[in-house]
Amino acid sequence: MTTKTMNLNDGREVWMNGEKVTDIHAERVFQDTLKIIHRYYELQEEKPETHLYTEKNGKNYSTTFLTPHSSEELAKKAKAYREIAKESYGMLGRTPDFINAGVAILPNYAHVLGKDEHTNYAENITNWAKHVKENDLFISHALQNPQVDRSQTLGSLLKSGGSDYAGAWVKGERPDGIIVHGAKMVNTLAPLADELLIFNTPTLTPEDDAFGLAFALPLNTKGVKTIVRKPNSKYDYSLADYPLSNAFDEIDAFIVLEDVFVPWEKVFVYNSWEKSNAFFPESGLFVHTAHQDEVRGLVKLEFVTSLALRLAKGLGLTNFLRTQEQLGRLTSNLELIRGSVEYSQLSGHFENGDVYTPNMQSLLAVRDSLTEFYDEALRLIAEFAGGSIVGIPSAKDLFTKENGELLKSSLTSPLLSAEERLLLLNLAWDVTGESFGQRQRTYEFLHGGNPMWIKIGHWENEDLSLGEEMVDTVLSRARESLNEEK
Amino acid sequence: MTTKTMNLNDGREVWMNGEKVTDIHAERVFQDTLKIIHRYYELQEEKPETHLYTEKNGKNYSTTFLTPHSSEELAKKAKAYREIAKESYGMLGRTPDFINAGVAILPNYAHVLGKDEHTNYAENITNWAKHVKENDLFISHALQNPQVDRSQTLGSLLKSGGSDYAGAWVKGERPDGIIVHGAKMVNTLAPLADELLIFNTPTLTPEDDAFGLAFALPLNTKGVKTIVRKPNSKYDYSLADYPLSNAFDEIDAFIVLEDVFVPWEKVFVYNSWEKSNAFFPESGLFVHTAHQDEVRGLVKLEFVTSLALRLAKGLGLTNFLRTQEQLGRLTSNLELIRGSVEYSQLSGHFENGDVYTPNMQSLLAVRDSLTEFYDEALRLIAEFAGGSIVGIPSAKDLFTKENGELLKSSLTSPLLSAEERLLLLNLAWDVTGESFGQRQRTYEFLHGGNPMWIKIGHWENEDLSLGEEMVDTVLSRARESLNEEK
Amino acid sequence: MTTKTMNLNDGREVWMNGEKVTDIHAERVFQDTLKIIHRYYELQEEKPETHLYTEKNGKNYSTTFLTPHSSEELAKKAKAYREIAKESYGMLGRTPDFINAGVAILPNYAHVLGKDEHTNYAENITNWAKHVKENDLFISHALQNPQVDRSQTLGSLLKSGGSDYAGAWVKGERPDGIIVHGAKMVNTLAPLADELLIFNTPTLTPEDDAFGLAFALPLNTKGVKTIVRKPNSKYDYSLADYPLSNAFDEIDAFIVLEDVFVPWEKVFVYNSWEKSNAFFPESGLFVHTAHQDEVRGLVKLEFVTSLALRLAKGLGLTNFLRTQEQLGRLTSNLELIRGSVEYSQLSGHFENGDVYTPNMQSLLAVRDSLTEFYDEALRLIAEFAGGSIVGIPSAKDLFTKENGELLKSSLTSPLLSAEERLLLLNLAWDVTGESFGQRQRTYEFLHGGNPMWIKIGHWENEDLSLGEEMVDTVLSRARESLNEEK
Amino acid sequence: MTTKTMNLNDGREVWMNGEKVTDIHAERVFQDTLKIIHRYYELQEEKPETHLYTEKNGKNYSTTFLTPHSSEELAKKAKAYREIAKESYGMLGRTPDFINAGVAILPNYAHVLGKDEHTNYAENITNWAKHVKENDLFISHALQNPQVDRSQTLGSLLKSGGSDYAGAWVKGERPDGIIVHGAKMVNTLAPLADELLIFNTPTLTPEDDAFGLAFALPLNTKGVKTIVRKPNSKYDYSLADYPLSNAFDEIDAFIVLEDVFVPWEKVFVYNSWEKSNAFFPESGLFVHTAHQDEVRGLVKLEFVTSLALRLAKGLGLTNFLRTQEQLGRLTSNLELIRGSVEYSQLSGHFENGDVYTPNMQSLLAVRDSLTEFYDEALRLIAEFAGGSIVGIPSAKDLFTKENGELLKSSLTSPLLSAEERLLLLNLAWDVTGESFGQRQRTYEFLHGGNPMWIKIGHWENEDLSLGEEMVDTVLSRARESLNEEK
Repeated sequence: MTTKTMNLNDGREVWMNGEKVTDIHAERVFQDTLKIIHRYYELQEEKPETHLYTEKNGKNYSTTFLTPHSSEELAKKAKAYREIAKESYGMLGRTPDFINAGVAILPNYAHVLGKDEHTNYAENITNWAKHVKENDLFISHALQNPQVDRSQTLGSLLKSGGSDYAGAWVKGERPDGIIVHGAKMVNTLAPLADELLIFNTPTLTPEDDAFGLAFALPLNTKGVKTIVRKPNSKYDYSLADYPLSNAFDEIDAFIVLEDVFVPWEKVFVYNSWEKSNAFFPESGLFVHTAHQDEVRGLVKLEFVTSLALRLAKGLGLTNFLRTQEQLGRLTSNLELIRGSVEYSQLSGHFENGDVYTPNMQSLLAVRDSLTEFYDEALRLIAEFAGGSIVGIPSAKDLFTKENGELLKSSLTSPLLSAEERLLLLNLAWDVTGESFGQRQRTYEFLHGGNPMWIKIGHWENEDLSLGEEMVDTVLSRARESLNEEK
Repeated sequence: MTTKTMNLNDGREVWMNGEKVTDIHAERVFQDTLKIIHRYYELQEEKPETHLYTEKNGKNYSTTFLTPHSSEELAKKAKAYREIAKESYGMLGRTPDFINAGVAILPNYAHVLGKDEHTNYAENITNWAKHVKENDLFISHALQNPQVDRSQTLGSLLKSGGSDYAGAWVKGERPDGIIVHGAKMVNTLAPLADELLIFNTPTLTPEDDAFGLAFALPLNTKGVKTIVRKPNSKYDYSLADYPLSNAFDEIDAFIVLEDVFVPWEKVFVYNSWEKSNAFFPESGLFVHTAHQDEVRGLVKLEFVTSLALRLAKGLGLTNFLRTQEQLGRLTSNLELIRGSVEYSQLSGHFENGDVYTPNMQSLLAVRDSLTEFYDEALRLIAEFAGGSIVGIPSAKDLFTKENGELLKSSLTSPLLSAEERLLLLNLAWDVTGESFGQRQRTYEFLHGGNPMWIKIGHWENEDLSLGEEMVDTVLSRARESLNEEK
Repeated sequence: MTTKTMNLNDGREVWMNGEKVTDIHAERVFQDTLKIIHRYYELQEEKPETHLYTEKNGKNYSTTFLTPHSSEELAKKAKAYREIAKESYGMLGRTPDFINAGVAILPNYAHVLGKDEHTNYAENITNWAKHVKENDLFISHALQNPQVDRSQTLGSLLKSGGSDYAGAWVKGERPDGIIVHGAKMVNTLAPLADELLIFNTPTLTPEDDAFGLAFALPLNTKGVKTIVRKPNSKYDYSLADYPLSNAFDEIDAFIVLEDVFVPWEKVFVYNSWEKSNAFFPESGLFVHTAHQDEVRGLVKLEFVTSLALRLAKGLGLTNFLRTQEQLGRLTSNLELIRGSVEYSQLSGHFENGDVYTPNMQSLLAVRDSLTEFYDEALRLIAEFAGGSIVGIPSAKDLFTKENGELLKSSLTSPLLSAEERLLLLNLAWDVTGESFGQRQRTYEFLHGGNPMWIKIGHWENEDLSLGEEMVDTVLSRARESLNEEK
Repeated sequence: MTTKTMNLNDGREVWMNGEKVTDIHAERVFQDTLKIIHRYYELQEEKPETHLYTEKNGKNYSTTFLTPHSSEELAKKAKAYREIAKESYGMLGRTPDFINAGVAILPNYAHVLGKDEHTNYAENITNWAKHVKENDLFISHALQNPQVDRSQTLGSLLKSGGSDYAGAWVKGERPDGIIVHGAKMVNTLAPLADELLIFNTPTLTPEDDAFGLAFALPLNTKGVKTIVRKPNSKYDYSLADYPLSNAFDEIDAFIVLEDVFVPWEKVFVYNSWEKSNAFFPESGLFVHTAHQDEVRGLVKLEFVTSLALRLAKGLGLTNFLRTQEQLGRLTSNLELIRGSVEYSQLSGHFENGDVYTPNMQSLLAVRDSLTEFYDEALRLIAEFAGGSIVGIPSAKDLFTKENGELLKSSLTSPLLSAEERLLLLNLAWDVTGESFGQRQRTYEFLHGGNPMWIKIGHWENEDLSLGEEMVDTVLSRARESLNEEK
């Protein structure tokens, strides 16, 4: 297997800052990010023992497509996820392995989707999953609907003429497929993907059948437009000035569907709000992508924890008890997450016969807590860096004939040369003070769902039997005593 | 094996509120707590498959004395700890299994203590550990020194005549043993124990050789006095009014040693500040007792989490999103602790040949976080109970001829009868608002060491290699860019 | 004017722990608290310049009854409140001055209550306010209804036979007055008061006319029962052991009304849910009692702030930067509250012609924040005291022949003698770890209303015009730029 | 008086991103900020009643130069500060009024600086203050030293040849003045100022006499270089996209002094580490600039509080109790700050005869708390905006022929048009997620000193006499009881 070459100038329509992008590979922001995506493919060549597995048919596939049948196989996948995440310091949340984790087990859950007079949805998704795996495609998923008017259902909004772009809906049916119209928002990395997988979160109501859809399509399908948000990069400056902002950008996009034709074989849910609601939680997609996601989140937390420590050391703060205590708080947080991610793999169960499924309550506890732990690390990095951060000149200034030497003399400390100090503080600022870092923080807080709903869902599914038994016991002893008072 | 009968009127000298206790079994506060301690022995009869194991010699011993050789054996011990903890809802921190967890592996580490011209300390501790196991004794440990003057070393304090009671020290030597004098503080459950194990935290300095001691002695040894703190009970009221305060009390005590003779065979460290410092951390005591301790802490967290839920349900609060979110926060916390405790067992390593030793970094992360999670649960219980708690009359009032019926009518809600409401709110108050509950909170925060030092120790021992590698990578990429600016 | 003598054995029916109290003055818990209440009267003799003012009729009255006509007069009242609060370290929240602050201005708002065919309510309340002032009565107010079933209105609960004790309601009408039945809960200090003022929070609905009531009655009225909660005292121990718990108790009580007759002249609202809802917020009672309340709250915060400092000094912690920072946080909190209380007086406005009314938004900001600042001080006190607190023996132990000297030697430090150390740590524990302290914490969080509703009310009434103007400006500048893009 | 015209192309040497700026007025980032600075002068024409006052000599001066002799005069100054701050929404911290607040009273404290054989420092500073006032100059102050090696004193660092740029130091003396060499960092707005006032924080030691300096100089003095940090602007986009980042930038700069000659008449401290340490705290500069600073901080807090509300309303969140409570928390915080700023003016005292000096403990409590309140508002804004913020296309995209209409349809809600929604979310993101906003957050946390030291200083100066008295009382009562036990 040779490393895949991606050609994005395949007719896809991508817009940025009011203009259509004529050559996607020529835009630096796309180029930079593509390099990191590409590492997913390169790693298969560099470390095949980790990144490939062999199927009964004798062929090798990316480990991320492996259907896990044991805790060990889940751990093998986790190792691959971890190494892929390392390439972006855990900051690219939607690398190919994310959706692959779900695609890997979709066929095992295909029966959930059934069939009808139009087509066999179960078969379609099974075939599509195979197609993705065989070609090791990069799939971006489009889940969120635009926030048009959350006080109305999508169905009534459509009927009342409120908006044609409140989601993706079926405008017409043809013998060979359907015509889809509408929009989806916050589609991370979409302009760089091979195909889009479009579906809904489980929030449709009986009025929303027109939106009751799930399907896939290539990005260069006629009628598909991708409009990207403003990038975070500052290309007037170097990577030394902005080591992360200028390294890659996860590129959230707005997807518009203008009377797009989707052939039946790529339709997985049609005309059913109930199946649409089932698509994500009951297809295994939710739990298996959550596994990839928390492994990646852990890598990101490892990164910022080490950065906090590096900074504390470089600025000479590790002699302060206060700083030591703060660092201990971070490592203690990190250790809870590490242990829980591992535990989620070790305490899995079998679903649909033989899919070894990670412990979702552990994964959701990680998802819920990691956001706060990540934020805590950011705040500490900002506190350590303090005002130093705004006293750093640009890398160019450090090397001018007129000012270079004096700046070096002013910025050098016994612990750090001026150059190392500049690099370290720029990194600290990029992760806390630049739009790159703040978008990362926003992503970490929200990409897995509203933190409030994650907590609520966690409570509803938690096994509290041990505690319940103890509360029953203490109350029953007190009740006996009460009865004696009568 | 028959359940052990404890006779505490064996000549031991116990003081309470200015008076010597003449019959320990007649004091209700001792009686009540003894019942819970006794459950440790009863469980061995009730569930021998969990609480006993068979040694090569064919004899059965408490599972808590098992030397673990595998993750499974550690899990077996954890199960026993958990069931013992359940008896007190996780609130008795110093039940026999605590020190047994350490005694179980002491012989494997005995060589650390060596021998000298007086005696063979390694042999002594091995024999003592055997003696404790064979007789299934209840050992209380005395670790803390009185806070006389922390700005001086113990040695210089003694020499200057500052105080004879700043710790336990050797006043004289005899051919058959030593004369010990001094005091130790906060010795939990001491008056109910068979023997005391007396040692120091690893804080001695070269000046403190006189304090460089570790030894054991029965509570009824001549010269030993136990002075207990004020109890938390309110025995003018019933268990219905104070379901925990009036159920048991962990009874912290001040131990005084007045020229006490300790025979050589019970001496484990003598005349060595270095060995005293090694005794706790390098004898396996620290890590194995930590394992018991975190399992117990988890049980306590399970208890208060369930209590918070029970209260929210009983008071009709579970319809509020706010409350649901708060409950989800508690279950998410709980799940992190559960996963980490399990992970500490699954990711152990072998020490001294074949002692399977739990992952200390996981256990310390639990110790560090559990205090805050426990406090968070308490605060939520207090918030849920709100002002209701001070509107509850005594159990007796609920049954007076004159007021009983009207009080019941005022306190009954569709969700709870007046009686159940009274019991539940009294339980909530006992755990948050009474000295019983607040002493429990203090215990949870401090029994495992100052939270600041736990954090600092955690940081110092954490493996951060993955993060370090990533920080190196990002800085090296930025450095390349910087070098291009030159 | 001579200090008032209170005779509480006037036929009132008070119940405690299932028994009717035969001699109120003989119960130590009542005795102790009464002493502090009595200080309110004694201060008028000791410092008449502060605690008395002279009316046009030449007579002297308690300053707390003064109708304020200027910022200076409000400050004079605040000074009296502060000195009264000092007597209980700010911990008795319902001393006579609390309700007096409202009674003072009730006549100015009497017109709100109107009149009808039965009686002239405006006149009644005016006369009652005069009666209270002339006789300097101690009035306890009964506001809260029992929590029977908050999912139903009081009216429907009554009609459906759900409970006769869900509030106070009119059972019958007589030519000379009304027959009231029902109950009120959490009536602080009720058993020690002269009269009760009974009314509702503004939460009645049109179905609740039977509960649409406000009236006053002496505690010894036939049919009135006062059932007190379990006290916090621990009288087996001395004041040295429990310096606050054994000093006084604010005594929350359950009030039962069994077919109680109230003559028309003591009825202030009748048969009107709307006037009941108006009674508290539109009578000046709310804002003027809030003024007293926040002055008292400030005194309490001063107390715990100083206690935290005293403790930090006594335990030798003030050399640690960490501790110094924590103390600075407390003094900074305190200073915000001080400034805001003063500002509420300096930025008042006139109502109903000439009643100088404090700035309610400032007072509510204090009410909202003080709870958290108080809690923060408590947590710090607990942290400072740490485990020392459970190592303290009883005062009696300190003086036994057998143990006294050795305990003193163990507890003495260069900064504190054993005796002072015991007193200070007992005080710290009383305020944080005993039911006295925790009931105080609960009181501080809830006595002024649910913190969530206080915040919501604050937002609804805040003047944000300056910020609004700036947001308008920045958006309008951006809008201009946007329009240029068109 | 006509509005001052600033000419910055006066020979000053300003560096940005490795290049010398040839025309300062031509750089957009300087242009934009200058417009806001200029408003300080324009306001004097637009609202002379607020922004000017008349001296005995009949001349008008900026109100910011008024020496306050009463609470009313302080309030007049506060009003001027507030209106100036409004122009930048409180975000330009170093507008001319900041240092003017201190310059106004410098002559009253001039005696602190004394005189010696070289010159009369007291006279110098008095003359300079007059010169600034007469010409209404814009003074930037240079306070911070570069962080070369904080483990050594500046003096020993210089002697050992460690760095010539660890601060500003005297390299030579001439009959007519001194030669100064070195550097200062984080000099906010320096490139746009008329003159620099250079001094130290009170941290010099006896070894640092060479650094014991305070002096002023015009920016275009030979040997002075200003090197500015990387700007926050994103000028590829419009003000609609970045309503704050592209509106102004406070421009922190590094100041280099290369053998700069300062004539005696501009030298205020020379060769004295003690006077250098006295210069800031004992010259009135600290307290009077703090007054301006906290008034400005309040304006900024008003701005973000209103923005949070605007956002909550625009996104339809104000129906949620959770959101309402969060808003109430913000308004309660705001009200504490408002009250405390006002109180600082109302509770001032007289210094040096007749300078009415604001209450510094109130101002420092504001400084300490405002940082956290500001941060709390930012976090709430980020939470409200949630993921919406990354779903916003650029302003240009909103008006393309191809996508404009469909984007509008997707972004319009019943509460906000697409355009208003874009503007509001861009503003929210600018204040929370862009480097502009994060630099503002850093500024707020650190510009007034390290928050830890602010707290510590606050504690050391707080009047706690009321609390002390109460603690004494309760302990003395407990002590009496203890003595009875003896």
